[in-house]
Amino acid sequence: MRLLVHSLLLWGRIRRQPTNTGRRGLASRDTMRLVQFCQLNKEREVRVGVDLGQGQGIVDLKSFDSSVPSTMREFLETGHRGMECAQRALSSGLCVVPSSEVGLLSPVTGPEKVVCVGMNYRDHCLEQNAPIPKEPIIFSKFPSAITGPFDDILLPDESKEVDWEVELAFVIGRRGKHIKVSEALSYVAGFTVANDVSARDWQMHRNGKQWLLGKTFDSFCPLGPALLNTFFWSPDPHNLGIRCRVNGNVVQESNTNQMIFRTEKLVAWVSQFATLCPGDVFLTGTPPGVGVFKNPPIFLKKGDVVECEIDDIGVIRNTVI
Amino acid sequence: MRLLVHSLLLWGRIRRQPTNTGRRGLASRDTMRLVQFCQLNKEREVRVGVDLGQGQGIVDLKSFDSSVPSTMREFLETGHRGMECAQRALSSGLCVVPSSEVGLLSPVTGPEKVVCVGMNYRDHCLEQNAPIPKEPIIFSKFPSAITGPFDDILLPDESKEVDWEVELAFVIGRRGKHIKVSEALSYVAGFTVANDVSARDWQMHRNGKQWLLGKTFDSFCPLGPALLNTFFWSPDPHNLGIRCRVNGNVVQESNTNQMIFRTEKLVAWVSQFATLCPGDVFLTGTPPGVGVFKNPPIFLKKGDVVECEIDDIGVIRNTVI
Repeated sequence: MRLLVHSLLLWGRIRRQPTNTGRRGLASRDTMRLVQFCQLNKEREVRVGVDLGQGQGIVDLKSFDSSVPSTMREFLETGHRGMECAQRALSSGLCVVPSSEVGLLSPVTGPEKVVCVGMNYRDHCLEQNAPIPKEPIIFSKFPSAITGPFDDILLPDESKEVDWEVELAFVIGRRGKHIKVSEALSYVAGFTVANDVSARDWQMHRNGKQWLLGKTFDSFCPLGPALLNTFFWSPDPHNLGIRCRVNGNVVQESNTNQMIFRTEKLVAWVSQFATLCPGDVFLTGTPPGVGVFKNPPIFLKKGDVVECEIDDIGVIRNTVI
Repeated sequence: MRLLVHSLLLWGRIRRQPTNTGRRGLASRDTMRLVQFCQLNKEREVRVGVDLGQGQGIVDLKSFDSSVPSTMREFLETGHRGMECAQRALSSGLCVVPSSEVGLLSPVTGPEKVVCVGMNYRDHCLEQNAPIPKEPIIFSKFPSAITGPFDDILLPDESKEVDWEVELAFVIGRRGKHIKVSEALSYVAGFTVANDVSARDWQMHRNGKQWLLGKTFDSFCPLGPALLNTFFWSPDPHNLGIRCRVNGNVVQESNTNQMIFRTEKLVAWVSQFATLCPGDVFLTGTPPGVGVFKNPPIFLKKGDVVECEIDDIGVIRNTVI
């Protein structure tokens, strides 16, 4: 808990959850939108909840059952038991906190891993005349890069080339090594939206061309708004519209069906190397339209508002400061 | 705690601490050797302790003061208060667990970051005819790679070129961003020994030449045996003999004075990008003598015993299985 409180200090001022989240990304009967949140009058107390969508509030799971852990990572560790409790809480109609009193955090904080995939959209490879990779290209961010779905992106003095990358993200729900492709989806707790913010100068030209530093500045991994739990979710995550807007202008627009290596393959691939554990976050790569490949290149500046959106999942909105 | 218990399952069978740790790496009046350990009859209960050295046992800090956290990461979060408690416990002569009843874990487990530095020894650059880097080259391992000082290195089926790298490691003791070089050492909790085990095929030829996967197989980061706390430690960490033996033969032999970027610089450098927090582990690069640059190249095979040693800090000993 102490670690979490410190992490919260880093995440900066907690934003009020927007009550109008647009046409897409709303709750329905077949989805469960797991979130981490703070009540605005108790900013340091992290809770796991279920977002009812459409500004109808958030079910506070710990209020419903005091044995529910306070963080998503611990909640996912409880497996089916936790999910069943969330379902009971949702059915009960109890313990609903008004959306206006809530600040949404990233649905996962402090994971053991933030696994990222490079060059994973066919159309993004075409954009840069790069061959289609034969194997996934895996890199990482430090967990300290994670920030909330409506928090600010901190433009670092150290980079002049900060770029956007909308990505489908997923979160691991149970521990595994050498996971088979055929069983991989059962290791996934749910899907969410990420912005793989990237300092191109550091990624492409410095640090011995190891991408890590350019990808891992604080706040370079906005995530959310909710974790769509796969228990209750029917749409195919690999056939969803995915787009990024900067100041309202669409800069990326594609479909997750362009992904070269899909969720199942990525889980199996990475689990050859490292044991996966609940809370591990995967960012699955970005479609075309990033700033560095525009002619002339365009990079983020202070005041820009970046929206990353995936149909049926939701939208995150981050201001560059 | 649940996370830790699961991590322990991953670490495999807990090894009895060797009672004869050799001439080097023993406790003395001006050192405090912080460890994480399990009692052999309570394998899943992680504790923070002070190793008295020379097989004299380990002071169990939680037995001395039940408010002491169970993990090193949480212990470091308590800052001076924790260190003072450790000092009182040491002075008391109480709560000593016999070395024969203890299994040593890595002194830190589950950190937020494992930060690694490439090409950071002058003599290692000369060995491969590479220019001396003008800036640190930073990459990472996932925390799941960490294993205990006397645990096994698991040779993966996926690599035919697994290599050793003895390294000076340090651990962050307090939170910071944009840390100045002149203040950087005050952010360091202590020093330890690491083996940056590396699958050269994956590091050098696959994964788009991003080093992460080749560096992050489970068990590829043996660490320990103790964290030499800088509160009590006088020797210069940048003027210590450092060596690696494989099956008793010295394969690496150098001095930490060959480091290009030292502890202070590395703390300041990485903190430009990411907020550092208690428990973050840094591996500071390796001297010459790695297997891949031998003629012909030599790689680890099952049954090999790898010892990584730094004068005044200690030795870790891992069998390849």
